[in-house]
Order: sequence, then structure tokens, then C-alpha cells
Amino acid sequence: MSDLYRVILPEDQIPTHWYNITPDLPTPPAPPLHPGTGEPLVPEDLTALFPMGLIEQEASRERWIEIPETVREIYRLWRPSPLSRARRLEQALGTSARIYYKYEGASPVGSHKANSSVPQAYFNKIAGRTRLTTETGAGQWGAALAFAAEVFGLSCDIWQVRSSFESKPYRSAQMAVFGGKAVASPSETTAVGRALREQFPDTSGSLGMAISEAVEAAAGDPNASYSLGSVLNHVLIHQSIIGQETLKQLELFEEPQIDYVFCCAGGGSNLAGLSFPIIRENLEGRQKAKIVACEPKAAPSLTEGEFRYDFGDTAGMTPKLKMYTLGCEFVPDAVHAGGLRYHGMAPLVSHCYHEGLISAISIGQREAFEAGVLFSRAEGIIPASESNHAIAGALRQIREIPPGESPVIVIGISGSGQLDLPAYVEYLSGTMPNT
Amino acid sequence: MSDLYRVILPEDQIPTHWYNITPDLPTPPAPPLHPGTGEPLVPEDLTALFPMGLIEQEASRERWIEIPETVREIYRLWRPSPLSRARRLEQALGTSARIYYKYEGASPVGSHKANSSVPQAYFNKIAGRTRLTTETGAGQWGAALAFAAEVFGLSCDIWQVRSSFESKPYRSAQMAVFGGKAVASPSETTAVGRALREQFPDTSGSLGMAISEAVEAAAGDPNASYSLGSVLNHVLIHQSIIGQETLKQLELFEEPQIDYVFCCAGGGSNLAGLSFPIIRENLEGRQKAKIVACEPKAAPSLTEGEFRYDFGDTAGMTPKLKMYTLGCEFVPDAVHAGGLRYHGMAPLVSHCYHEGLISAISIGQREAFEAGVLFSRAEGIIPASESNHAIAGALRQIREIPPGESPVIVIGISGSGQLDLPAYVEYLSGTMPNT
Repeated sequence: MSDLYRVILPEDQIPTHWYNITPDLPTPPAPPLHPGTGEPLVPEDLTALFPMGLIEQEASRERWIEIPETVREIYRLWRPSPLSRARRLEQALGTSARIYYKYEGASPVGSHKANSSVPQAYFNKIAGRTRLTTETGAGQWGAALAFAAEVFGLSCDIWQVRSSFESKPYRSAQMAVFGGKAVASPSETTAVGRALREQFPDTSGSLGMAISEAVEAAAGDPNASYSLGSVLNHVLIHQSIIGQETLKQLELFEEPQIDYVFCCAGGGSNLAGLSFPIIRENLEGRQKAKIVACEPKAAPSLTEGEFRYDFGDTAGMTPKLKMYTLGCEFVPDAVHAGGLRYHGMAPLVSHCYHEGLISAISIGQREAFEAGVLFSRAEGIIPASESNHAIAGALRQIREIPPGESPVIVIGISGSGQLDLPAYVEYLSGTMPNT
Repeated sequence: MSDLYRVILPEDQIPTHWYNITPDLPTPPAPPLHPGTGEPLVPEDLTALFPMGLIEQEASRERWIEIPETVREIYRLWRPSPLSRARRLEQALGTSARIYYKYEGASPVGSHKANSSVPQAYFNKIAGRTRLTTETGAGQWGAALAFAAEVFGLSCDIWQVRSSFESKPYRSAQMAVFGGKAVASPSETTAVGRALREQFPDTSGSLGMAISEAVEAAAGDPNASYSLGSVLNHVLIHQSIIGQETLKQLELFEEPQIDYVFCCAGGGSNLAGLSFPIIRENLEGRQKAKIVACEPKAAPSLTEGEFRYDFGDTAGMTPKLKMYTLGCEFVPDAVHAGGLRYHGMAPLVSHCYHEGLISAISIGQREAFEAGVLFSRAEGIIPASESNHAIAGALRQIREIPPGESPVIVIGISGSGQLDLPAYVEYLSGTMPNT
């Protein structure tokens, strides 16, 4: 191993292709079903919502999908992202483990979400769409899409889960700086929003509800597309640049073997982005890394959900997806990790979990923030509420390392916690519930 | 010139020495004076407030001061910082200028301040001090010192200018995550604070008042030192790593000649950090860069102040410094760029300005935020309120470039604006005064 703290690859090492795990899976994942007919979806079913470039990726069985040069050029604003050895965290823990973290928080919007928003906006632009609609939880995805829409001259309307909209005002400010327009969901701006508000007047909202609103808005506007920040195959494919870079960076750290990978898991895009390229290494016998999805106790789809077909949204407007789900009407507690408050898990992640390629644990938010404060003080980076779950998962593992062993642990830090600081204050004041 | 977007040097290129401009100045700067006797200060006068390691730097006439290995190791958490070519901003402006920006916002606390807080905490630690006291405006310095104190196991008490304490709650949260304790200044915790509150019950506070409080607290506690985030020579010396890295990075961009350097200027540490190593190149005939200090209209010490001896604080407890000053009792308007709300300018910067080595302009905050929004949308980085002044200064210059000329412009982006987002909302809503 080397004595470096941080490896940042040169710009020409930004991956040239996204990685698609589908053709490498030992068994094929179940297809999405049409919400009306219950038949397997055909590409034409999606053309009202998505441009063809993304629909093709969604159904693709190509292992490597070329990244358009225009997208790679935008990626150069912040990529490749750093991989750091957490030397000071290791010292603080007194552990023999070697801990690395891949930090996605230095992107324009402070999270990994820009990795997918930029190509989504690009493929919409070249398809002639002029407006994007989307949902967002904590706001990372909404801000990322607002930025990407701005880059390609598109307008951007965002339905943000009400609990996050109210508790995280800096996020909608960020969306506004990038020219996006955010409203709290459920809202008065859509039929489904108005119906939900009538049925549940006090609801804190959910990603499922916000998706329904954004889908309704896009379906009713021929110039608009809907954009999703996680769950779907094409989003997971875009995020694969995280894991590809990580593998190269570990080579430069002279670490041939990865023992554990810890990622937070909400919809699954960050987990898939870091871990799918490593799962490929596992499947081809070059690695034996254990991949651990760290869910919030408030939305434990993998650890407590059922593996079955379910809608992606609350109102049943999306295709049905085979996934681990808590039920599309499930409304998680209003935990700070708004990005993890989703009732289901990406079909590809669900499939990998079902096949034993991924394991999962659930973490309460007090345990997550305890880990986040420890990490902040050691490494000088305040992680996003979501990312704290990955750190907490790693800390559980580290406490169980037998004497004399020095496993290599990779943690995905999906974003910066600068806009989550009030949550840290709640944790430090001792009033945070451990839901 | 190269086709790169961003140059990040490898860790082993973190400078090994800080640069001290004092021995290179054509005329010697005026010495600080004892606040009581009016005689030139001797090192012993400062031992109640500072450890000897920093006092030696303050008076040093060595050009190069070695950076302790322990400090360089902490620097590795975020340094070297990136230098980027603002290609998308150039396109947005349709300019023939080549614009580069040195981004200090990726540090643990989102600004350049950590470059000095870490060595300050280090020299206090090895001198046996256990507690640090300081002032802070917008909070960047307070957060930086809290982080550095945590690294070296020191406690940290911070007096934050009241207007910023109230308008920027995320900053005190950041300080708390790093274990620091912030109070609004003027406060009830010091005699000078209580007197100021009685005299000016409605005051929004000022850096001068907060300095008085922190100095009083340190002077009364033998285990404590006072730490200052700008103005003093040793702080400017620590920041010189910014400019040293920039010169190396411009070489890799294949840019031998710099035409303009734009920096925001409050106390002067960011300006000095980026520009002093470039002024050295100017003095030795290798560069002819014009250095432009961009002040806020609310605190225009260089452009409207007098060059004379004045106190660094409001209560007259600090040594008297020869500097451009608006008068130590001047209280600037409560503009968002809290880090620039200081009545004076660092003596070394003042001296350089007086000698014609630096020029200066003043910028209203609406002009600053207009520049900040343009920059954010082009480059995907939301700059700190302070940094927006540097961008606005560069934009003024760019609009005056004669056809056919392609000057090389370097902008110092001293910090991230993630915690300034409410100020951006105020700007976007059209209600921001142009003070």
C-alpha cells in the first residue's frame, strides 16, 4: 500500500463508458410491467415520459455504454472525484483496518446525483425536449437536475417532499441559484397532489407522492420529460463511473484486494454506482469484496420489505417494478436522511440482493450521526445525512475485526452534509430520535 | 496553453515552505506599536496572546519558513487545492480572455481559512496551550479554528459578529460539529462585550468588537491563546501556499504569463495568500501581473480609508498597526459578505497598496451576487459571498478587453457559498440592497 492520503485521477481518466451490470448477472432480472395491462413493458410505453436515448439504456443488455463527449466535458467540472484513505479516522478508532472513502460531495450540487442529472438532461436536449420535471427528497437530486437543466438550457420543475422542503430551506435555494423551481409535495399544482392533500391533509409527503406529481406534469406536456434520480436502470448505469474510478484509484493506492464496501441505500443509485463495478470483479473472480447496503431504520426496504412487483410511486402511475418494497403507500418517518426515504429499492439492486451478491443492514439515525460526527472531526469532511449510514455500517464492522487482521474497507460518501447542519445540531443536542 | 479543465497537483507538491514577502519588499513596512507606550512592539509584548512560534513568524525577515511536517500532513486532507480554467464561464461571457480560478472552498470548512487555523493550532499545541479564543465574521474563520483545535485536542471559544451569528445559523452549527463554542458578539461573556452592549444596545456587531472580546478572554487565561484569522503577518504567511500552488498549476496549464489577479479583500489574508507569491514574480521581473483587491462598498478600507496607525479592534486592546483604515470604531453595514466587514486592511497588504504593488476597487453586493450567480450556473460552484466580489471585479475587467486581446485572468475563489444560500435567495428575489 502507498503512503498517500488522497488520489485524484487526471481528467483523461474519467471513464469513457458507463458500466451496465445486466449482461453480467448470473440470472436475468424480472422485466418491468405496464401499470395498466400487467404485460412486460416495451420501449414505446415509455416515450411519453423519457427520451429514446434513456429508454434504450433502460433496456440495454450492452455491458459498456459509451459516454457522449459532451457529457464527459461537463463531468470534468468535478470529476474524477477523490478517493481518500481515512488515516485520521483509523487513528481515532485505533483500528488495524485500512479505510478508504470515495467522496462525491465535491460535485456542483454536493452529491453523486449530478453524475446522472447531466446525461439525463443531455439526452433530453438532443431529443428536443425543453422542460424537465422531477421529484426530490432531501433535495440533492432536485438541485442536480436544476444544474444540469441550466447547462443544457432546459427549464426544470421540482416536486420536493414536504418534510424536506420545510426542514432544508437551503436546498430549494440551491435549486433556485441553478434556475430550477421547487414546490413542496404534495402540492396544489397537480391533480394527484390535490387528491393526496385532501386524503392526507397532514402528510409530510413521500418520494412516492412526489414522483406521482412529477410524472403527471410530464405526461401532460409534450415538450416535457420526467427525470428520476434513482431506482431505474439508466440512473444506476450513469452512476457506475463512481466504482470504475474507485477501482483505478485503489490500484494507485497499491491495494489489490477489497474486503468490504459500505454504501447508503435509499433508491439504490449511489450503492449501485460504487458497487456494481466491484460486483463485476467479484463475479469474474478478481475480488471477493462483501458489499453492504446500509439502509435507514425508517425505510428498510431490503431488510424488512417483500420482493415483489410494486409501483414506483404512490398513485400507481409508474410501471410496476420487481423490487424489495415496503408497499408503495408506505410513508417513512421524517428522518433527516431524506434521500433514503423511499418505499422500494432499485430493481437491479433488489435482484443482486436476492441473488446474494449484496448484503444489507439497517441503521438508526442517531447511530448514523454519531458516526458522522466522528468522521467529520477526523477527516474534516461533514458527510450528508445519507452518507452517515454507510459510515455507521463500516464502524459496526470495524468493531468486530479480529486482532491481527487488516481488512480493506471502502465507504461511499455520497454527498456533503453542509446543508444538513441543522440535523447535526439536533444530534449534538441529544434530542434526535433513533428512528 | 493546454486543454485541461482542472489541475490538481499530487500531494507531494504541497509547498514545503511558507513564503514571507517582507524581505522582498522594496521599502520596509512600518512596525506595529505597543497600544500603551506607542513604542515599536518587541516579541515579549505578544507572549500573553500568542505562542512564540507564531510571534517569530510575525516578526520574521526570512523569505521561506519551513512548514512543520505535522501541519503538512493535515493539509493533505484537502490540499493541493484545484486550479480550474473557467471554460464555461468564458463561453457564457463570449470573451477572448482565459479565466482561471483557484478554489479554496473544498477545505474542511469550505474556505481558505483552514490554511492558517491548522498551523496556528499546531504552534499553540506545542507551546502547551490548551484553549484558543477567536473572533469570526461570517463564520469561516471560526469554523476553521474549531476544526484545527479539534485536530490538536484544544478547546475553542469563538465570538461571532452578531449580524452573521443571526443570519448564518449553519455556520455556528459547523463550529459545533467540530467541537467549537460560538456566541454572538458583543456578548455578556466579557467586560468589553458588556460595555459595548450598554453603549450600543442595537449594534449588529463588528469584527473589531469581536476581536476585543476574544483578546480579553485570552489575556485573562494563562492556558489560552488568541488566534486571529487575518490581518497579521503570520496569517498572511500561512496563506502563501495558495499562490505558490497557483504558479505551479499555471505552468501545467502552459500559461507562462499572468495579466490580472482578482481577489476579495477584507482583512487581506486571502488576497495576500494568492497574490504575494505572484508579486514576488513581478518584483523579480518574471511576471507583470496586475493585482486587484476587490473590496465591498460597505467596508472600503483601501479605496476610501486613511493610511495611518490604528487599533486592530474596537476597544483599543491590540497593538497599533500601520494600515489603511476606516477607523477602529467603524461599523460596516450588515452585508452578507461578513468576512469582508473589517475596518482595516492587513499592514502588509496596506504597504503593498501604498507602494503601488496592488490596486483596489470597491464592489456593491448586488453586483457581487450577479457575478456569483453567473459563475454558479457556468462552473457549477456556488462561491462564497466574499468570493463574489473577486468575480465581479474580474467581470468589470473582462468587459473592457479590446478586440483581439486574450489576457490571462486569475480569480481567487476563497470559499464555497453553500452556507450563504439565503443571501443568493435575497439577490434572486430582487430585494438585496447594493451597499
